[in-house]
Amino acid sequence: MQKIRVDLGDRSYNIHIGSGCLEAVGEILPRFGFGSRLAVVSNPTVYAIYGRPLRRSLRNAGFEAMKIIIPDGEKYKSLAWTQKIYEKLLRARLDRKSALLALGGGVIGDITGFAASTYMRGIDFVQVPTTLLAQVDSSVGGKTGVNHRLAKNMIGTFWQPRLVWIDVRTLRTLPRREFLAGLAEVIKYGVIHDAALFSFLEENRERILEMQDDALTHIIMRSCEIKAEVVSQDERESGIRAVLNYGHTIGHALETVTSYGKYLHGEAIAAGMCIEAKIAHLMGILDGAALKRIRSLIEAYELPASAPENDDFEGFLSTMQLDKKTVGGELTFILPEQIGTVRMQKGMPAEIIRRALQEL
Amino acid sequence: MQKIRVDLGDRSYNIHIGSGCLEAVGEILPRFGFGSRLAVVSNPTVYAIYGRPLRRSLRNAGFEAMKIIIPDGEKYKSLAWTQKIYEKLLRARLDRKSALLALGGGVIGDITGFAASTYMRGIDFVQVPTTLLAQVDSSVGGKTGVNHRLAKNMIGTFWQPRLVWIDVRTLRTLPRREFLAGLAEVIKYGVIHDAALFSFLEENRERILEMQDDALTHIIMRSCEIKAEVVSQDERESGIRAVLNYGHTIGHALETVTSYGKYLHGEAIAAGMCIEAKIAHLMGILDGAALKRIRSLIEAYELPASAPENDDFEGFLSTMQLDKKTVGGELTFILPEQIGTVRMQKGMPAEIIRRALQEL
Repeated sequence: MQKIRVDLGDRSYNIHIGSGCLEAVGEILPRFGFGSRLAVVSNPTVYAIYGRPLRRSLRNAGFEAMKIIIPDGEKYKSLAWTQKIYEKLLRARLDRKSALLALGGGVIGDITGFAASTYMRGIDFVQVPTTLLAQVDSSVGGKTGVNHRLAKNMIGTFWQPRLVWIDVRTLRTLPRREFLAGLAEVIKYGVIHDAALFSFLEENRERILEMQDDALTHIIMRSCEIKAEVVSQDERESGIRAVLNYGHTIGHALETVTSYGKYLHGEAIAAGMCIEAKIAHLMGILDGAALKRIRSLIEAYELPASAPENDDFEGFLSTMQLDKKTVGGELTFILPEQIGTVRMQKGMPAEIIRRALQEL
Repeated sequence: MQKIRVDLGDRSYNIHIGSGCLEAVGEILPRFGFGSRLAVVSNPTVYAIYGRPLRRSLRNAGFEAMKIIIPDGEKYKSLAWTQKIYEKLLRARLDRKSALLALGGGVIGDITGFAASTYMRGIDFVQVPTTLLAQVDSSVGGKTGVNHRLAKNMIGTFWQPRLVWIDVRTLRTLPRREFLAGLAEVIKYGVIHDAALFSFLEENRERILEMQDDALTHIIMRSCEIKAEVVSQDERESGIRAVLNYGHTIGHALETVTSYGKYLHGEAIAAGMCIEAKIAHLMGILDGAALKRIRSLIEAYELPASAPENDDFEGFLSTMQLDKKTVGGELTFILPEQIGTVRMQKGMPAEIIRRALQEL
């Protein structure tokens, strides 16, 4: 198994990556000092496949593990469902020493982390991500949250897991479209920080799409290493962590204006990365060859490389300004300078954004 | 003005205590680097007296200060009302640089702190406590939270304010019963940590009940100093901070079994302190003379010194076990050894608790 350290002082933790390791998680938990009562939070689809083996592993290690099932879908990442989690934890008398295990994708990880961070003023939790997006992005770094009716991810905390346990085999049961969407975030790491990873993605497309263990382990490990490095430098996103938002300023707005019905998150980010690369090109920051490589790689993984036509550009701008990354109404973009490095650009003229959207 | 430092590394902050200083808060805020948009959270009663002067002070310092009014009462310290706060913040586009000001008692401070800690993964907040209980206890130390239908204060975070701003003059508009209830926590600081404060309370009863500025400032300052010292050593209550719970194991259970209808929090804590002192006496830890002084002081401030008769002792025990201070079902008590020092006692026999309840 591979092990990556997220270095955050007394909140440090390890990411373990292996193939077929799901049922081994029980063996590692006793060292964390949790009490005997745990709760596994999952959704019906994931729980049906991985729930029983996971809970058996926990029981074999001496834990009582209750289950909490949340319906499948982003709309259940809500305060109302957090309230239901609290209720189950209270009724089962989970206490300050108890821990939650998040078994599933980003929705499960985010709401479980949020519940853990606010139950009895904060209890421990463990991420067991089963989607590619969660494995390379949302399970690492301690961002937790739920959606508000008015905007996504507006309610949440920074609350680090005690452990992230990744079994790459779980990707075999993931729908292909979700797998591809997760690759968008892997491509992002290549663009912002690692030209070699970007090249690896260009050169190993077939092995990755066939889900070969070693290729998957490599790209997940590199993604987690980059995320761990960035998060260690800036846990609360007051500076450098913002580089992880490449593709996200446009991407989030695309998700919002399409009411989260058209795109998976990674698909919106893929389109966002192309549009933001185009912005960088229009600003004279990124050369045409690099722009073309970014677009080609995104298309090679069957991801959207442009936005749908949209008559309401003002509405789109206003949506971006409501994003919580916006401070004082000023839009901030992360723009690639070349494959492997980005810069932060504040106060982008609306006209440039409009051109990038139209010309792609 | 008096100034006390709460020493918590990069989360350190000051408590300012003065007389008639409410409107001066605007002058100190610019140094904190907040954005221009603030929100004052209050209840109708407090806002009617202090809301306009406070907001005027903020406007004079160059801030836009919206108001958010929460109905008066513990039952509004809920997730549902937190949701309404989020909605107002989102609609007014408060961003990551915005800050909330809590103007009121413990309910307002707790829910405002909780909303601040979870809005956009955490924004700044300032405590402007206007009740004695909030000034000496709940506004200091970063405990935030709301109630769950099944139990009080179960949902919350540790989230430190950037500043606590105390104007002792605000106590003049506080109902006398609430003022007395706040004194219960001041008595607590005397018992757990400061025999001189305890004596001061014995010797200056009239000056305190007449709300003389210097007497009030003294007892509030000493209370805040003790709380700041304890919190600095143990922010998240993993050890020494538990001494602040003297009176609270019994007190919380009394509040719960009377459905929060009979006692103010401080009144329940007063009764809890007497009963826990009696437990200490029955265990041979506290001598009879000290027990008598504690009871006498509590009675001198017109606070309850015993629990009402209760036929359901098993229900009472079970209520205590549901408390979030309970880990692994084991009841923990903070017991006085003499005026000024306490010890932690785990695994208290039920029979001792029953006797203490009955014999008082």
